[in-house]
Amino acid sequence: MKNLLVGQSGGPTAVINASLAGVIENGIKSAEIGEVFGTLNGIDGVLGDRLVSLSHFGEENIRRLKQTPSSYLGSCRRKLPEAEEDAAVYERIFGIFEKYNIGYFLYIGGNDSMDTVKKLSAYAAKKNINIGIIGVPKTIDNDLFLTDHTPGFGSAAKFIVNSVRQLSLDTGVYDMKSAVVVEIMGRNAGWLSAAAALANSEDMHPVDIICVPEAVFDRGAFVDKVRRVMDEKDTTIIAVSEGIKDEKGKYIAESESVRKSGDGFAHAALGGAGKIVEGIIAAELGIKTRSIELSTLQRCFSAIGCKTDVSEAFSAGYEAVNLALRGCTAVMAGFRRIADTPYKVEICPFDINEVANFEKKMPKSMLSPDGMYVSDEFIRYARPLISGEQELEYDNGLIRLEIRK
Amino acid sequence: MKNLLVGQSGGPTAVINASLAGVIENGIKSAEIGEVFGTLNGIDGVLGDRLVSLSHFGEENIRRLKQTPSSYLGSCRRKLPEAEEDAAVYERIFGIFEKYNIGYFLYIGGNDSMDTVKKLSAYAAKKNINIGIIGVPKTIDNDLFLTDHTPGFGSAAKFIVNSVRQLSLDTGVYDMKSAVVVEIMGRNAGWLSAAAALANSEDMHPVDIICVPEAVFDRGAFVDKVRRVMDEKDTTIIAVSEGIKDEKGKYIAESESVRKSGDGFAHAALGGAGKIVEGIIAAELGIKTRSIELSTLQRCFSAIGCKTDVSEAFSAGYEAVNLALRGCTAVMAGFRRIADTPYKVEICPFDINEVANFEKKMPKSMLSPDGMYVSDEFIRYARPLISGEQELEYDNGLIRLEIRK
Repeated sequence: MKNLLVGQSGGPTAVINASLAGVIENGIKSAEIGEVFGTLNGIDGVLGDRLVSLSHFGEENIRRLKQTPSSYLGSCRRKLPEAEEDAAVYERIFGIFEKYNIGYFLYIGGNDSMDTVKKLSAYAAKKNINIGIIGVPKTIDNDLFLTDHTPGFGSAAKFIVNSVRQLSLDTGVYDMKSAVVVEIMGRNAGWLSAAAALANSEDMHPVDIICVPEAVFDRGAFVDKVRRVMDEKDTTIIAVSEGIKDEKGKYIAESESVRKSGDGFAHAALGGAGKIVEGIIAAELGIKTRSIELSTLQRCFSAIGCKTDVSEAFSAGYEAVNLALRGCTAVMAGFRRIADTPYKVEICPFDINEVANFEKKMPKSMLSPDGMYVSDEFIRYARPLISGEQELEYDNGLIRLEIRK
Repeated sequence: MKNLLVGQSGGPTAVINASLAGVIENGIKSAEIGEVFGTLNGIDGVLGDRLVSLSHFGEENIRRLKQTPSSYLGSCRRKLPEAEEDAAVYERIFGIFEKYNIGYFLYIGGNDSMDTVKKLSAYAAKKNINIGIIGVPKTIDNDLFLTDHTPGFGSAAKFIVNSVRQLSLDTGVYDMKSAVVVEIMGRNAGWLSAAAALANSEDMHPVDIICVPEAVFDRGAFVDKVRRVMDEKDTTIIAVSEGIKDEKGKYIAESESVRKSGDGFAHAALGGAGKIVEGIIAAELGIKTRSIELSTLQRCFSAIGCKTDVSEAFSAGYEAVNLALRGCTAVMAGFRRIADTPYKVEICPFDINEVANFEKKMPKSMLSPDGMYVSDEFIRYARPLISGEQELEYDNGLIRLEIRK
């Protein structure tokens, strides 16, 4: 009887562990599977022979894991070389698979991780190694191909949307005009910034402008729109992707000379779009403006409890095990939407070759004609993804977490 | 029969509206009170004759108000002049009170608002005007005198604590050393930064260093401590008050030359302590460091649902009405702690003259000997304040809010 190995890779999300929980629960339950192993720090843990048994997981661990953000098993950012370039890496990986009698390898992650799934399954096929290699999608960026959306997106969106609503009340308390720029993650795809539009509802309309990487940031048009908005209301929230670009395709965060000192990190270097847009509004319109970075909190805040996202993430992991048992390989367990209202999706295996290394950006049809807001199509698409409240367990005011000892 | 007037003032919190809900509920219920009025934007609304009736509030409005952050009635930052300097202001205010037949004026706010309560009640006493003027405490800073703690602190602390736990998992996913500096509100008092210590529990110990304004920020000692911590573990969270100061009493955020461009606002000018501490660690120890500002989210995030805070805030407002009906004036309805375990407080009237214009800072006994962490006394004090989970109502993934039309 073959064993199952699961790993996590890429940036954390609120529900990457919910997918892990789904894999573990189904893996333990399945009579055809022996032991359930996890690899620490993704594929790095395979290369370093750092596998741990997860077969001891009980109901309580699973329950806690479902509300624990970030990667329980740790993560990595390694991109595998091509097999032709460096066969040794593959020999090492498949050597470990053999050592632990792995028949199923499930990898939870985003774009880079799906590249790993693609390369490993191609290698296995070439070498006639019988192992099911399945990807489980994960990314707050929602930028994976074929799948309707990605686990992690809904929780991040729900945190952003509710934060924006609360920030809007916060900023509106004084009797004066003010604008708040909220910088949201997303270097190349604006899905998450676009989700800020969901904050607008019957009772309030906080968000008037959304700037995404898919639409050129035109300073003049932007300032005009802010002016028009502020002529009509006292406060507004402007959602800005960290990766907005000017007409030359240059990141706004790099194109202006407001680079801060002290940060030597590539990641930090992309921060700052919000601050720059704040400066533009203050300079051009003289309106009191504040910028807020939602920072990494937006990807790891599981205490907002997005039920749809948590249960879908769990199901994706759970069903990925079923796909593996049915003999699937070289696929990602993604979502196909059946209906918007009532919202319904099903989990399907998507060909990993059509997923890996592509980035799904927002289509024009999901943006407003001026590119500075979203269309109704986007609202119909995104609204269901933040719905439902997951009941959370707390202990002395602290959200209960499942933590690897 | 006299009417009641309630107002809100100062910076928003997650539960200032819960106090308002308590005032409204008891005000409507009390047979001795006629109409319940609210003043828009605090005392500014009195001066501008902008009073609204709140007598239509039903159960559902109250329920929603209890989970709506920020100030339902709007806020202001006006500090009243001394009556001897500008009698006209007082004549105008008491003229409006007379116009609306106000017999009870309840003012929910922090230090400046208690100053307003003090001045108005002194004026009323001097002029023999029969009106009960009561303060209801509110501030995330927890810096009001006499009261054991302030409504708003618990919710902010609970948001911070759970954010820190989640951020800690987020930062620990890669197999490398890293530090995260979390900048927390608090210009002169470190209560809220200190609360980050509550993130440490049996299962995890994310927070090792806490820098508060009450202890001098000694760069050398700080760097030494970070080095010692990082010798023993891979990741650490460092909580830093925005108002930490050097040995000359100068704000760290001002003492270094990293002032950012574009912000002309006094408030924004104090941001930056976290960024500077990040720079210090990176420069002196070469460890990957990231700084995160929890920004205004920490004061307005009611979706964390801190039951103790919400119900205490409600009770403070509710009991303030009873105090007014019993003939009290020139008092603040604060908390006296009866026991830590099981936690119990009672609401008492505190002499407003002993509250207004004082700032309660953290006593030495609540800090560790090196001033860079907290003592057990603080933990005993603060732990109960974040306990209990308020059930929250959502609608389509959006927290339901009570919003003034």
